[in-house]
Amino acid sequence: MTVPLDNPQPKLGIIAGGGALPARLAAAAKAAGRAVFVVKLDGHANDPLLENYPQTTVRLGAAAKILDAMRKQDCVDIVLAGKVSRPSFSAIRPDWRATKLLMKVGMKALGDDGLLRLVGQELEREGFRLVGAHEILPDLAVEEGVLGAVQPDEQALSDARHGLIVARTLGQADVGQGCVVQQGLVLALEAIEGTDEMVRRSALYKRDGVGGVLVKSAKPQQDRRLDLPAIGLKTVEESHKAGLRGIGLLAGGTMIIDRDAVLARADALGLFVVGLRADENQ
Amino acid sequence: MTVPLDNPQPKLGIIAGGGALPARLAAAAKAAGRAVFVVKLDGHANDPLLENYPQTTVRLGAAAKILDAMRKQDCVDIVLAGKVSRPSFSAIRPDWRATKLLMKVGMKALGDDGLLRLVGQELEREGFRLVGAHEILPDLAVEEGVLGAVQPDEQALSDARHGLIVARTLGQADVGQGCVVQQGLVLALEAIEGTDEMVRRSALYKRDGVGGVLVKSAKPQQDRRLDLPAIGLKTVEESHKAGLRGIGLLAGGTMIIDRDAVLARADALGLFVVGLRADENQ
Repeated sequence: MTVPLDNPQPKLGIIAGGGALPARLAAAAKAAGRAVFVVKLDGHANDPLLENYPQTTVRLGAAAKILDAMRKQDCVDIVLAGKVSRPSFSAIRPDWRATKLLMKVGMKALGDDGLLRLVGQELEREGFRLVGAHEILPDLAVEEGVLGAVQPDEQALSDARHGLIVARTLGQADVGQGCVVQQGLVLALEAIEGTDEMVRRSALYKRDGVGGVLVKSAKPQQDRRLDLPAIGLKTVEESHKAGLRGIGLLAGGTMIIDRDAVLARADALGLFVVGLRADENQ
Repeated sequence: MTVPLDNPQPKLGIIAGGGALPARLAAAAKAAGRAVFVVKLDGHANDPLLENYPQTTVRLGAAAKILDAMRKQDCVDIVLAGKVSRPSFSAIRPDWRATKLLMKVGMKALGDDGLLRLVGQELEREGFRLVGAHEILPDLAVEEGVLGAVQPDEQALSDARHGLIVARTLGQADVGQGCVVQQGLVLALEAIEGTDEMVRRSALYKRDGVGGVLVKSAKPQQDRRLDLPAIGLKTVEESHKAGLRGIGLLAGGTMIIDRDAVLARADALGLFVVGLRADENQ
């Protein structure tokens, strides 16, 4: 998306979950001279930096309120960003609009990503334009190849590739986005606990010999404009503590938050970070 | 396998991993008037009851020794039973025979079940006959339908069926055999940590409302004669402690160790146990 500087971009609506990404996007948009409005998802958005922007707080289940707020604020471009821990049906407390949506797709919506995909589709149906976080902050994107200074050896690359197959297979069932593989063994699979927790757990099951690899992937069917799996500084620290040797990321299907800092820290700790291409037949 | 009583069955070789199953099989075979010989896998077999039978202890990687022992003991029928925590390549310390095997299939053998499958294939190539544990102890087998006194409600059945799809999808990547699903959400996926540990973890992530379901499944490609996923009394106790409402098991692809005791305890705790048919298109 290239827009001449003398043609200011339209206001950006940010639907914000947890973690640092939503405020980063707000800052990047603002730095580019773009107005922003933030809808914080109640109980999920948790970055105090978001207080610096015009905003409101809405329940995840209050679909009508989210759409109304965005419309009232004249937001056409909308980005969804940040962690949303998957709620149970009863915790969503859907309003009439969300209920209608949920009825349409059934309980499948409560699968790992179903809810997000649903929100995205509904936004587009309502005339909004869904924008990917990497369109706002291009250095989030992961490209193929070794990204830091540390080179993975053959065993590590083999573990990373195996992990990518496992993570994408998981993704077929709309669950999980990560795993830890050591010498061909899958030490841990990520469900709802989050990447950091899974990485910590993997340390309990690690075998002798060279350490394992954390792999993160989008799901094969994942809309690239919706919240992609992301790693940040914490992921690098936890991976190091767990005795891992590096991190494999699906190129074009994952994000690095604070890329420069993340790669510098990985270099310092001796961890590799590699972007992996998905095999077409996976 | 029905054999007239006046035609005694041939000696049974038991390659024994951890847990109670190997000694149960030995007892059942002996009760049926059949001689047994046990090869305990070093570091895996851990049931003191195995001391009651003729036996030897061999490293998992010492394939030649395992074959030699079975041959010397005139065992033709062989059953593999019990937990074998997947070792790293370096921990296997393969002998020349195991190395030849591993070279043949490559590192894939170290996938979750690859090693077992390999041992099974090699046994048959060497003229042994691989026997399923349920052929020795028929009440291990899980049939379709509600097995205990507690009936699952519709939500629970929906969770169980969703869990079966997830577990079988996982199985395609030759990893994991279980998961916990609550109201459509996958709370935990089993990798190498074992079912009990995964069930305990799921309690940390449970949502409000009705509790979840533990699901265990064989892999789609799993040889039914090789060690199938099993539940026992401990699984029932842990599931209850974790707030689960029941257990779903792939019919024909999982085992219940101590069926009567397990179902009685599940009844007493109010947990359902249901055998699920795999959809053909899964």
